[in-house]
Amino acid sequence: MAEKITPRKEDYAKWYLDVVKQAGLADNSDVRGCMVIKPTGYAIWENMQRGLDRMFKDTGHVNAYFPLFIPMSYLAKEEQMAEGFAKECAVVTHYRLKADKGVPLHVDPDAKLEEPLIVRPTSETIIWNTYKNWIQSYRDLPLLINQWCNVVRWEMRTRLFLRTAEFLWQEGHTAHATAKEAEEETLQMVRVYQKFAEEFMAMPVMVGPKSEGQKFPGAIYTLCIEAMMQDGKALQAGTSHFLGQNFAKAFDVTFTNVENKIEHAWATSWGVSTRLIGGLIMTHSDDNGLVLPPRLAPTHVVICPIGRNDAERAPAIAAAEKLAAELKAIPRCEFFSYEPIQVKIDTMFDKQPGYRYAEYELRGVPIRVEIGAKDLEKQSCAVARRDRPGKEGKQFGVLLETAASHIDTLLREIQIALFDRAKKYRDDGIKTASSYAEFKTMVEQPGFVWAHWDGTAETERKIQEETQATIRCLPFDGPTDAGDCMVTGQPSAKRVLFARAY
Amino acid sequence: MAEKITPRKEDYAKWYLDVVKQAGLADNSDVRGCMVIKPTGYAIWENMQRGLDRMFKDTGHVNAYFPLFIPMSYLAKEEQMAEGFAKECAVVTHYRLKADKGVPLHVDPDAKLEEPLIVRPTSETIIWNTYKNWIQSYRDLPLLINQWCNVVRWEMRTRLFLRTAEFLWQEGHTAHATAKEAEEETLQMVRVYQKFAEEFMAMPVMVGPKSEGQKFPGAIYTLCIEAMMQDGKALQAGTSHFLGQNFAKAFDVTFTNVENKIEHAWATSWGVSTRLIGGLIMTHSDDNGLVLPPRLAPTHVVICPIGRNDAERAPAIAAAEKLAAELKAIPRCEFFSYEPIQVKIDTMFDKQPGYRYAEYELRGVPIRVEIGAKDLEKQSCAVARRDRPGKEGKQFGVLLETAASHIDTLLREIQIALFDRAKKYRDDGIKTASSYAEFKTMVEQPGFVWAHWDGTAETERKIQEETQATIRCLPFDGPTDAGDCMVTGQPSAKRVLFARAY
Repeated sequence: MAEKITPRKEDYAKWYLDVVKQAGLADNSDVRGCMVIKPTGYAIWENMQRGLDRMFKDTGHVNAYFPLFIPMSYLAKEEQMAEGFAKECAVVTHYRLKADKGVPLHVDPDAKLEEPLIVRPTSETIIWNTYKNWIQSYRDLPLLINQWCNVVRWEMRTRLFLRTAEFLWQEGHTAHATAKEAEEETLQMVRVYQKFAEEFMAMPVMVGPKSEGQKFPGAIYTLCIEAMMQDGKALQAGTSHFLGQNFAKAFDVTFTNVENKIEHAWATSWGVSTRLIGGLIMTHSDDNGLVLPPRLAPTHVVICPIGRNDAERAPAIAAAEKLAAELKAIPRCEFFSYEPIQVKIDTMFDKQPGYRYAEYELRGVPIRVEIGAKDLEKQSCAVARRDRPGKEGKQFGVLLETAASHIDTLLREIQIALFDRAKKYRDDGIKTASSYAEFKTMVEQPGFVWAHWDGTAETERKIQEETQATIRCLPFDGPTDAGDCMVTGQPSAKRVLFARAY
Repeated sequence: MAEKITPRKEDYAKWYLDVVKQAGLADNSDVRGCMVIKPTGYAIWENMQRGLDRMFKDTGHVNAYFPLFIPMSYLAKEEQMAEGFAKECAVVTHYRLKADKGVPLHVDPDAKLEEPLIVRPTSETIIWNTYKNWIQSYRDLPLLINQWCNVVRWEMRTRLFLRTAEFLWQEGHTAHATAKEAEEETLQMVRVYQKFAEEFMAMPVMVGPKSEGQKFPGAIYTLCIEAMMQDGKALQAGTSHFLGQNFAKAFDVTFTNVENKIEHAWATSWGVSTRLIGGLIMTHSDDNGLVLPPRLAPTHVVICPIGRNDAERAPAIAAAEKLAAELKAIPRCEFFSYEPIQVKIDTMFDKQPGYRYAEYELRGVPIRVEIGAKDLEKQSCAVARRDRPGKEGKQFGVLLETAASHIDTLLREIQIALFDRAKKYRDDGIKTASSYAEFKTMVEQPGFVWAHWDGTAETERKIQEETQATIRCLPFDGPTDAGDCMVTGQPSAKRVLFARAY
């Protein structure tokens, strides 16, 4: 364990970075705003990909891959998109370097591209330009395609996982014969994200449309999942956009419908990114380090044989190896995305047990098993839960004979316990404001606030300017009582959810 | 089935493109040299990734992710690398576009980067610049990291999968405390590639070092796997490089060794790419379309119920569904990378059976099952193998009761049969030249040629200029008889393998 982690109460932002770095999840690179995702961080992403990819395929989607580069003119074809992304595009202007004798390596001025290429910030334009060739008839629809890739948005202020110039994500791009189908798809995918967030990440989310002011450039509307972090701020964790016929019109994607009439196709797009890893950390982790839900943990169980000398260690190691083998032999199942349970045997005997335990707490391994001489006298072991550190979450005298199935069950219990705890925290952190004055006080405190709003972009802007709080979403399952806008007094159909956000 | 496929004998290059396009594997995009990998092509890549990734992890490697962009100065730090890649780099020079009123979208001249960034053509430089921070002591070694990502090399002449400006690949980058360990890793990984090529792709390969002239820029030596395509040309399918201390020195990566002395770390790198898909096609496919080995096929079995009317079709569909369910229920196993057997039921009843069969032959589905009224009378079905089209590979009267296990077994047989056939073709296609005159005649014909060479870059260049043949590799398992160079008469320790190549 390299250094001490800043306690959350002292400085939440610093705590976050300490956990990211000390648990070995990511590093800043020398390239401005670009991160290096380290092996443990990437292993979490791989587990996220496995879970999501299965859900995408179960809902009929297939993967494909489209070019990294987008001609500048494509971006220009969809006005909102150009406005939304022009200011944060990495632009490729040349295709060759040159090193003359005596002159250092430099961009070859003779190798200038006729048209600049931008590095994809999102792929609607290049994909819809391709769909033009793939869609002729209603029989070619729906087209249900997803892509796993890297994207670049030249952000000025970056933070590991939460906001980086380059990030990894998936982007679904579907084409449909009717608006209804496309809207159903938009809803289906935000529900897939909700299910993933809640069942894999153990992170409860609010689901609903964004306000007009917060929607995706080029979308008719945007549905989102919003989570509450431990500091009470909101994190937009996934979005699903109904794009109407905007991109079909911009790229001239038409098809012959059942009535033999030509019409433009209907579109959706939806994405989640490595930002989810930031959300995962800020939902569950504590001052000892990372806390990971078992379904996404790269290592599920660490077994620590304990002994003062070789004579004590040998039987403990043997028992650890036997238990590890039993855990690995548990049949692959859906809960772990059909991968085996991942077990590590720790043998840092040159370190004190406390140091070893702290190391795996830092790294967020959900279950730690301790096997020492006294345990072996009773053919048992001690089992400690990472989600409840200290004595509270530690069981002694777990019989080795049945330890593997006990641990398998416990991993599932931890998954649920993490969700329940996060949900209680989230629910407890939502207040209801009955006036703008009250609202202003509330948003100074951590948490979300339900408030009435007149539905205008103008009021939304005013609230944001005065309080830094934004409308996170208009949840499908929120309160439904009508009222008056807290700012203008105009009628409001229902309260919407405000918060300061990442 | 859209259009007719050009027969291989007529025009092999055109046949290749016809198969790629008509089987729905990839398309050219509007962006010069960049391809769109279509769902079927991408599904093959996913299966390749699954197989390779497991082998990497089984040999102790972990995945991580490094930035897409590399500062120009990093490339300059390793001289051979700068020379090798400078001429084909996409260069990012600006980070913003701008749309003034009345002026179309353009590159914002005020947003010029202080230092140009290149889009990674390979990641040794950025990774070794990062390793500097990760490696201090021999305890930090070995570092065994792999990355799955996209890379860009601005190729002037491109061909789908085989040579594209952007392609997908994996690149392993390992750091070791000793030269011996790094060399063992280099060898281990080329053997992993061989195993993957032979056991998953059913593509036999020659394994050995490249000549000095063909090695990777920055490497001490390069090991490779080389395959023979059906037109007798060679395809370099994977490379593993021993990089010595070149990158450690360029990026100042030192560590304290066991004797407490500071020294530079030893490096390897190794990669395979979406080029493998091209190799897969040109190893097995035929004039009817794609032929895929079962371990990499996105769909393993297509079941075609046959019937002239609903009364005939209903029982055939029911039998198809039962068989499909049985196939899907076969337990996940290593052979299929722990994924279920993929089954499709075809119901294009508006098309003639012949059309339907041809469609799945085009797409390379390894096994087709036909269930018609006559089959059902005997509670049986017909099972057709894609690798042996026509009557030869079709079994009638396969009992439905045991069809699922029959098909499971047959998939494994097909995998082996494809390898055996490709190996026989490859072995039959290797000649031995006893003089340069004979060599010149031989390289005009399809196939590889064993020949004596004096080991100099000069002779190698001369042979390439005069015959377009290159030294593909110095195979570990080639003939060991000494002789005289066919060009200069100088001594040659053993024959090396020449061919014209992709």
